[in-house]
Amino acid sequence: MSSQKKKILLIVMDGLGDRGNEDLDWQTPLQATKTPNFDWFAKNGMSGICDTIAPGVRPGSDTAHLSILGYNPREVYTGRGPFEAAGIGLISKKGDIAFRCNFATVDEKMNVIDRRAGRIREPDTTELVKALEGLTIDGVQAIVREGTEHRAALLLRGPELSPEVTDPDPHDLAEVLESKPKCAGAVFTAGVINKFVKKSYEVLKDHPVNKRRIAEGLPPANVLLPRGGGSFPNIEPFPEVHNMRSACVAGVGMIKGICGVCGLDVLDLPPQCTGGTDSDFTLKAKCALEALKKYDFVLMNCKAPDVCGHDGNAKLKCEIVQRLDDMAGYIRDNFPKDLVIVFTADHSTPCSLMDHSGDPVPITIYTPGMVIDSATSFSESGCASGSIGRIRGFDIVPICMDLANRTEKYGA
Amino acid sequence: MSSQKKKILLIVMDGLGDRGNEDLDWQTPLQATKTPNFDWFAKNGMSGICDTIAPGVRPGSDTAHLSILGYNPREVYTGRGPFEAAGIGLISKKGDIAFRCNFATVDEKMNVIDRRAGRIREPDTTELVKALEGLTIDGVQAIVREGTEHRAALLLRGPELSPEVTDPDPHDLAEVLESKPKCAGAVFTAGVINKFVKKSYEVLKDHPVNKRRIAEGLPPANVLLPRGGGSFPNIEPFPEVHNMRSACVAGVGMIKGICGVCGLDVLDLPPQCTGGTDSDFTLKAKCALEALKKYDFVLMNCKAPDVCGHDGNAKLKCEIVQRLDDMAGYIRDNFPKDLVIVFTADHSTPCSLMDHSGDPVPITIYTPGMVIDSATSFSESGCASGSIGRIRGFDIVPICMDLANRTEKYGA
Repeated sequence: MSSQKKKILLIVMDGLGDRGNEDLDWQTPLQATKTPNFDWFAKNGMSGICDTIAPGVRPGSDTAHLSILGYNPREVYTGRGPFEAAGIGLISKKGDIAFRCNFATVDEKMNVIDRRAGRIREPDTTELVKALEGLTIDGVQAIVREGTEHRAALLLRGPELSPEVTDPDPHDLAEVLESKPKCAGAVFTAGVINKFVKKSYEVLKDHPVNKRRIAEGLPPANVLLPRGGGSFPNIEPFPEVHNMRSACVAGVGMIKGICGVCGLDVLDLPPQCTGGTDSDFTLKAKCALEALKKYDFVLMNCKAPDVCGHDGNAKLKCEIVQRLDDMAGYIRDNFPKDLVIVFTADHSTPCSLMDHSGDPVPITIYTPGMVIDSATSFSESGCASGSIGRIRGFDIVPICMDLANRTEKYGA
Repeated sequence: MSSQKKKILLIVMDGLGDRGNEDLDWQTPLQATKTPNFDWFAKNGMSGICDTIAPGVRPGSDTAHLSILGYNPREVYTGRGPFEAAGIGLISKKGDIAFRCNFATVDEKMNVIDRRAGRIREPDTTELVKALEGLTIDGVQAIVREGTEHRAALLLRGPELSPEVTDPDPHDLAEVLESKPKCAGAVFTAGVINKFVKKSYEVLKDHPVNKRRIAEGLPPANVLLPRGGGSFPNIEPFPEVHNMRSACVAGVGMIKGICGVCGLDVLDLPPQCTGGTDSDFTLKAKCALEALKKYDFVLMNCKAPDVCGHDGNAKLKCEIVQRLDDMAGYIRDNFPKDLVIVFTADHSTPCSLMDHSGDPVPITIYTPGMVIDSATSFSESGCASGSIGRIRGFDIVPICMDLANRTEKYGA
């Protein structure tokens, strides 16, 4: 019976790791907050610390998730564009090039006045994206998809495209740049991108939505500025590599995109699961447990701790930790006995740094009937004394697969 | 503020790690000695253990330092000659071959009678090296430079040289050997080396310094015996790789040489910083802290614990540990708040073994505002419970770079 295959729930609490905070008496939010449920899992399971990429490497959420899913980001990470595009449903074919885009406000000399067009959002963006439908430039299809707020994605589909072009987005309040090829093979693509930017201005500048915005004193979203172009990576789908029906429960586009590109089913969630600090973590956990009735592997991402880290808000991060612990309590109370659960993070986002750091993240793994180690608390320091030791992101899935009795014997 | 770039002081206490000593009630010198200052850093920072090369690999100081500086010794370590030569200021060009040399005493049949010529030293060696100036053999320049005591370095500069030759030095009281090529391409070099050894005998045997030594009953230094030939490695300079102005504070030639070859500035030190057991560690730390006003990264080496290990003197090693702890106290009292400090070793030199061992070494890292772990004492066992876990030498610089807020984010 105990050799039956188990299922795996990998909970990635984005940016959870931290450093000592002056506001918290030089403790981390995890050290400073009472987390009886996380600690219960630590007491009854195995803990350790994890460099999601490598010691001292400061990961992005994208590269870290790739590594956690077992891919070498140095091989498959082809820029943010393709992953964000996939995150909002722009699933690509081989040869496609994707860009992240901002709806922005420019003056008639193409100087950027507002990089986010007053943080325009739907339904305005929905209308504007509709106006850009069906664009073809020099035989290349330009497919635009709406993201959250002012964000969008652009996918170019056609022959002979190259991602080796510079960004038209000046990343500042400055003149829109001319995209330049970084190599001889990208001359055509740079030309297409430049024409696309001009075309977007022509289509958008007198659009009724923008006329209305100007009348209301709001900045018009009169241009779409692409950046971070990349081709879609050649990734062997995660469900095939590991022979597990796999899904992702996440609120943030980029994470959905990464999981989608890796072949996980990206599940629709109730609107209360937002990807922000207001997200209902317990509801998300409910969705994950429900999904596990159908799937063998679920990756669940909670973005909120990362948001607090970027905002430098250690007190709010403690509150988020508290609510995440409540979520862990829900799982503890409703624990399916055939489950291997992992609590970890994709990287640290120290509030003092207001950005990601390369500090290793805590990890606790629990399933009934495993080795119970001496670690008793879930934190950067508490997990370090556990029996998992110091591992890499790509070690997580194999360890869980083995605890789930899903590995093949190697040898005799 | 806390995202400001910090500076890094990496203190390598040479051969500090040890094994249980019968004389110390089966403790190591670090376990047996009260080290309140090291322990303060352990209590307030993160600790772990480090295999400078790999578990069970018994490193030399040279290969260990290369690994600590982030280089793979399997790729760049081309023998001891080039590093010792660099250590005494013989900086090379591509294609040069370097050897370590001893001034030795031979009889007229070229049998070695004293491998160190009675531990001859300057000013005698200075005079003898002068006599060997300007040698050219078959079109190859032979440049000799004085080392400490009986030691010297030989650099061959010319076309078509190969380091693949056997040592003329018999490493014993035996006949001087004929250098043999280890491959077809090294026939010419072996010939040059053999001619060099003969030439050194001809130049030195009747030199006034040796005549005087014989009259005084001292062994004459009548030959120079090369060994450990190597070509200079192709090393990408450390300051460029890490974008840090970098310097080395060390008393020992070999360490200076390694740091020099890696592109660190090798700083001049007061004569009290000797590289021996009599060295003034606190003065050395003062020099290192002073250097950090100008440099971003300083590697400081203290050779003394290694000397005690090689001598099998556990009691003296405890005294050295005590004095190193005083040095740590000086740093604690004068701690620049923008500093990341590392206390570690390049390898263990157990007194019971009287040589290096492959035991991992303790490491403690401290900077204000980092994660504080549960380790409370700086020793082989005390550090092992810390949150750094078990790392490799090449992990140290990336971890410190990240704590110093000097890493680039990889991904988004």
